[in-house]
Amino acid sequence: MTKLATSGSNSITMRLWTAPDHAVVGEVATVIADAGGVVTGIDVADSRHDRLVVDVTCSAADADHALEIVAAVEAIDGVEVHKVSDRTFLAHLGGKIEISSKVPLKTRLDLSIAYTPGVGRVSSALADKPEDVRRLTIKGNTVAVVTDGSAVLGLGNIGPGAALPVMEGKAALFKRFGDVDAWPICLDTQDVDEIVRTIELIAPGFGGINLEDISAPRCFEVEARLRQRLDIPVFHDDQHGTAIAVVAGLTNALRVVGKAFADIRVVVCGGGAAGTAIVSLLEAAGVQDIIVAERNGCLVAGTPGLPPAHEALAARTNPNKVSGSLHDGLRGADVFIGVSAAGVLDAEWIRDMAPDPIVFAMANPDPEVDPVQAAKYAAVVASGRSDYPNQLNNVLVFPGVFRGLLDARATDVTVERMLRAADALARVVTDEELNASYIVPTVFHADVHHAVAAAIAGS
Amino acid sequence: MTKLATSGSNSITMRLWTAPDHAVVGEVATVIADAGGVVTGIDVADSRHDRLVVDVTCSAADADHALEIVAAVEAIDGVEVHKVSDRTFLAHLGGKIEISSKVPLKTRLDLSIAYTPGVGRVSSALADKPEDVRRLTIKGNTVAVVTDGSAVLGLGNIGPGAALPVMEGKAALFKRFGDVDAWPICLDTQDVDEIVRTIELIAPGFGGINLEDISAPRCFEVEARLRQRLDIPVFHDDQHGTAIAVVAGLTNALRVVGKAFADIRVVVCGGGAAGTAIVSLLEAAGVQDIIVAERNGCLVAGTPGLPPAHEALAARTNPNKVSGSLHDGLRGADVFIGVSAAGVLDAEWIRDMAPDPIVFAMANPDPEVDPVQAAKYAAVVASGRSDYPNQLNNVLVFPGVFRGLLDARATDVTVERMLRAADALARVVTDEELNASYIVPTVFHADVHHAVAAAIAGS
Repeated sequence: MTKLATSGSNSITMRLWTAPDHAVVGEVATVIADAGGVVTGIDVADSRHDRLVVDVTCSAADADHALEIVAAVEAIDGVEVHKVSDRTFLAHLGGKIEISSKVPLKTRLDLSIAYTPGVGRVSSALADKPEDVRRLTIKGNTVAVVTDGSAVLGLGNIGPGAALPVMEGKAALFKRFGDVDAWPICLDTQDVDEIVRTIELIAPGFGGINLEDISAPRCFEVEARLRQRLDIPVFHDDQHGTAIAVVAGLTNALRVVGKAFADIRVVVCGGGAAGTAIVSLLEAAGVQDIIVAERNGCLVAGTPGLPPAHEALAARTNPNKVSGSLHDGLRGADVFIGVSAAGVLDAEWIRDMAPDPIVFAMANPDPEVDPVQAAKYAAVVASGRSDYPNQLNNVLVFPGVFRGLLDARATDVTVERMLRAADALARVVTDEELNASYIVPTVFHADVHHAVAAAIAGS
Repeated sequence: MTKLATSGSNSITMRLWTAPDHAVVGEVATVIADAGGVVTGIDVADSRHDRLVVDVTCSAADADHALEIVAAVEAIDGVEVHKVSDRTFLAHLGGKIEISSKVPLKTRLDLSIAYTPGVGRVSSALADKPEDVRRLTIKGNTVAVVTDGSAVLGLGNIGPGAALPVMEGKAALFKRFGDVDAWPICLDTQDVDEIVRTIELIAPGFGGINLEDISAPRCFEVEARLRQRLDIPVFHDDQHGTAIAVVAGLTNALRVVGKAFADIRVVVCGGGAAGTAIVSLLEAAGVQDIIVAERNGCLVAGTPGLPPAHEALAARTNPNKVSGSLHDGLRGADVFIGVSAAGVLDAEWIRDMAPDPIVFAMANPDPEVDPVQAAKYAAVVASGRSDYPNQLNNVLVFPGVFRGLLDARATDVTVERMLRAADALARVVTDEELNASYIVPTVFHADVHHAVAAAIAGS
């Protein structure tokens, strides 16, 4: 794998006390560059007879790299590192979302409308006519972002408190891209019964449930049971958001290479939450030959010792009973879709795939194969990373999905709705724009979220 | 009881089609005034050869009165009521709160800081150091406003969906007056075990729990059990918010009449959630002679057939074992505090109280006694109504309480904290300002919420 690029989210600001000699500042810049950092700003905050106070901001590749840079600067003669602040942590101070009132609260009359006694008439009306709750309350635009903290990003089971920054970020993105009001609910349990019951009990105040970062296979049961019990849509983003993004990307990748869903063999690497949902949506899109590869190789129905979730996956896939390693599974396959772990795909193996192979390496933060290496052999390469072309990211999907569900007052998220969303997302890329390096639009594209929402709503 | 005044929260706008004759518009105004309405606006929206389109806005006393006014207008020859819209319902359309992002989300770099990959570093740091969760997430400023919809305002058990407008209003007030981010959680259960367990499970994402509109005696057990189990403060506003407002008001009423807590006899009318909490806080303030009156009269310890909660109240109050009706209990008492039902206090009975009697008639929306009638006999009168002097309202209390609890990172709300808050609220009214018609400041007073917050925080 090539050296990771520096990232603005790994940006640090060092407050330095230096000798009152501008040459020293120049030396700081040189030392940082030599250490692999990228200086993005140098501000002299104070200049005195005996010292300069200088704020130096630079990007690092990761947290360890940032520490290396600080150590290198500290080693300079005449430089004292007084304080190091981290841009990402500063942005998270106090949390990333807040609430605000949509009604004025300046006068006593305002209070009497928004609160007592006026609100009593509204509550009374809703008691008589419950179907108006969505219209007269936040329920019509509100989603709970629910996690148990068991599978947070690539960090694993870090618990509900540590998961909160991720849920807040998600809520912020819901608002930014879908105008959906989402609130984080971090559960202090990882018991399926308790998760299901808790969500059921808090459901009256929400118009939808977005499950997030709940580990497989528990997430399947949580979702299935909630869908049975609730009259609001339940959507596990790690499964279905990923699946919709992948099918959208694959739709366009197939446009690029001139193949059809019905004719391709797809190897899905990773039989967890995302992999399982991808299999389902690929099947719905018409793919008939799917092989799922797990740690021990290709899943074949009837293999002794398979966990139940993998046995179920095996039973519905791999019609030709291809066995062996991931490498074995890839021979002659048209598409590799990785939702597994960093580095499990050797770029050389892509040579053994069918002509014009498509590689989606989506493990985060580090993909199954370095996209640059994969591009040597594949016709189309996509990943979850923002620093390579073709970033397949759930942010393309979930804001529009819930916007559409809420607009339609939907009670469920069907496979048909999800397939329509994938297709709509793919079609945001016009024939003129489409090429091997542009199979999905950017999340900032004005049409993305409206297109997904309209497709989900069915209008 | 005197005729209720019209209220801006009972404001309706009628769209009228009238003959193209301005005399008709004058007749409309006259008819509304004759029906007891107050016209607050007449706009001619469209003027044509064959008709005028006129929007008439007027205040009514209540919803039935509004219907009477509409009927009276409809009866005018040459007037057609085309549409009636209700100002309060219009204000509630789509709900009253929304979320917003505190961080910019304009560029890819912004996303990488607020969401992946940057957020991963923050979550990872919190997994290592859970005590930083309050600092780096919304938890430090966030309160859950939790109800089961069992005792909503004066409306009773209307359920979680119909309770949502009240919880939203509360959340809006939390932000407006305390800069606290509160989110409504409306529970689809009225089972104590389930309420407790659900709140326990969602607690990781919140810095405090504000219980709301949960009926007695279940609310006592819910609160007690949560206080044992949670490391964040739990506050039942209907109990303690009311108690703090009452004790603050009583502190100043006693200043007006020159009496001391230790010397007074208080009759608390209503042995529910609010009454019980008022008794506790009065005791903490030094009151030694409290009688609780319920539907069947004064509570006396040992009376056969008392419900357990009332037996417990009786056991700690009424040292002189005064029995009989509310009227009997009031003889010689210094203070009446009503948290019961409209009209249960006959103003004439106040004559039988001790000299300079104090009457707090707080039943909502209609008090135990008409404040105007009570003022004929009492030295100080207060109520929950905004259209009489001395409105004792929880809005004076709860925003500052949670502001202070969050600022102090408090794990519990002690009686000491609550008593300090009551005292601080009372002392916002200076000696110069204090009089029988001004024992509590307005909720818009700049000092109120800061004073309560500082007292609660203990700084």
